[in-house]
Amino acid sequence: MIDLTLVGIGTGNPEHLTLQAIRALNAADLVLIPRKGAAKADLADLRRAICAEVITNPATRLAEFDLPLRDEATPDYRQRVEDWHDDIAAIWAQIIAAHPVAQKVALLVWGDPSLYDSTLRIAARLRPAPRLRVIPGITSMQALTAAHAIALNDIGAPFAVTTGRRLRDEGWPAGVDTLVVMLDAGGAFQAIDPEGVTIWWAAYAGMAEEITLSGPLSETAPLILTARAEARARHGWIMDIYLLRRAPPPVLRA
Amino acid sequence: MIDLTLVGIGTGNPEHLTLQAIRALNAADLVLIPRKGAAKADLADLRRAICAEVITNPATRLAEFDLPLRDEATPDYRQRVEDWHDDIAAIWAQIIAAHPVAQKVALLVWGDPSLYDSTLRIAARLRPAPRLRVIPGITSMQALTAAHAIALNDIGAPFAVTTGRRLRDEGWPAGVDTLVVMLDAGGAFQAIDPEGVTIWWAAYAGMAEEITLSGPLSETAPLILTARAEARARHGWIMDIYLLRRAPPPVLRA
Ligand SMILES: C[S@@+](CC[C@H](N)C(=O)[O-])C[C@H]1O[C@@H](n2cnc3c(N)ncnc32)[C@H](O)[C@@H]1O
Ligand SMILES: C[S@@+](CC[C@H](N)C(=O)[O-])C[C@H]1O[C@@H](n2cnc3c(N)ncnc32)[C@H](O)[C@@H]1O
Repeated sequence: MIDLTLVGIGTGNPEHLTLQAIRALNAADLVLIPRKGAAKADLADLRRAICAEVITNPATRLAEFDLPLRDEATPDYRQRVEDWHDDIAAIWAQIIAAHPVAQKVALLVWGDPSLYDSTLRIAARLRPAPRLRVIPGITSMQALTAAHAIALNDIGAPFAVTTGRRLRDEGWPAGVDTLVVMLDAGGAFQAIDPEGVTIWWAAYAGMAEEITLSGPLSETAPLILTARAEARARHGWIMDIYLLRRAPPPVLRA
Repeated sequence: MIDLTLVGIGTGNPEHLTLQAIRALNAADLVLIPRKGAAKADLADLRRAICAEVITNPATRLAEFDLPLRDEATPDYRQRVEDWHDDIAAIWAQIIAAHPVAQKVALLVWGDPSLYDSTLRIAARLRPAPRLRVIPGITSMQALTAAHAIALNDIGAPFAVTTGRRLRDEGWPAGVDTLVVMLDAGGAFQAIDPEGVTIWWAAYAGMAEEITLSGPLSETAPLILTARAEARARHGWIMDIYLLRRAPPPVLRA
């Protein structure tokens, strides 16, 4: 039986690594490193750099593999994702089979494996099922709040985490005055009424390239759109995240 | 001007510490360690053990202080908390003043400083305002999901994070099928209809004492109540957290 450890590595700052992550990487016989194609080359480089820096066990082998592409011919979004996960699981199985001495396999996961990441779903496809372990990592939500030195929640208040697509399609969700938005292809905050809303935005949060902007949404939105387009053009890729907070509607306040 | 660094230390596993946290602690002239009274002695001990293990800079001083109590004579909850934060800020200021050579002060924060923690709000009271820096730490949400090897979100779906009190008072919030509940004084999940709801629960998540339970809420709720009461009696204190997920209501599904 294979031991498969999903290791959260944080969001691009190699110092986000925890002692537990470092121990898990050094305990592995084999570490799988996905390559995502030229545009995101920085991230495979970063994974390589992290491994080079913290893995001191000479017996640990690294194996890089190319992530397959999603089949754009599949019309249904969910089906397309499911098929893609099947393909990735098949590649993992192949690499693991090619290293018969490897009993302990580790996979580096961006941020934390629990947050908008498919690694757990892909791992669930492996047969025979591996012994699965998860090492938590610093998330982009935390890299965002640390960059701005802000709290996620008001005292005792709830918050929600959602995607750019949801914010666009469904607007501000009921019942919360704080909203964290991830996986935004760009500017989904334009879909909501900016009145009374403050935004804290970060791109490349935690990384050397980090950019932050914050302020009233009405004034800050155009600055973010410009900064985002410029940064994206300069780096060839971007990852950004933001927190929106509105004053609680006075009539509804208990 | 004082540099004040809030260092997220994770949720009780000393190996949750990040390389960034270790670097920040070793860069500090002074590390403040709160004592919370006998019942929670374990946690001050843990903070001491973490410092002893990772601080290698002989110039770094530790200063312990007793957290003041909230003034139960103040009837308004919010006012009571505000006053308490004022008191804590005054104690910090006093200790910092007593160490005039200390320019770089660090504070250990349980989990991550952004998540249901008052350290940022207390720091905002210091005058003159310090140069503030936040080092993210592993949260109890992640210790929970890692313990169960589960994801926070369904693919592309939102989730909410709330408190036991809110769940009791307001029920399941609109618009989400996944809910993380923290700061529950015990069994707030009993306030919701368990039909179709699954719970993943952890106490002392990430710690040597970790206990986990999961399953359909209807069957698992009584097991959790029993396990919680027993663990609490045995250890003298408890911290627990859980994730609730319900099948999306079919009629509302897009
Ligand atoms: C597929 S999700 C993975 C999230 C990751 N598992 C985590 O814990 O943060 C990718 C999204 O996370 C956010 N993200 C990840 N890293 C980021 C970074 N360094 N700066 C800003 N946003 C980031 C962005 O919203 C991005 O669209
Ligand atoms: C005042 S909040 C602090 C949260 C912390 N800042 C974090 O990032 O997790 C305390 C609550 O966090 C949760 N918690 C913290 N540590 C925990 C642990 N080791 N196991 C389970 N729950 C924990 C519990 O819900 C507890 O009531």
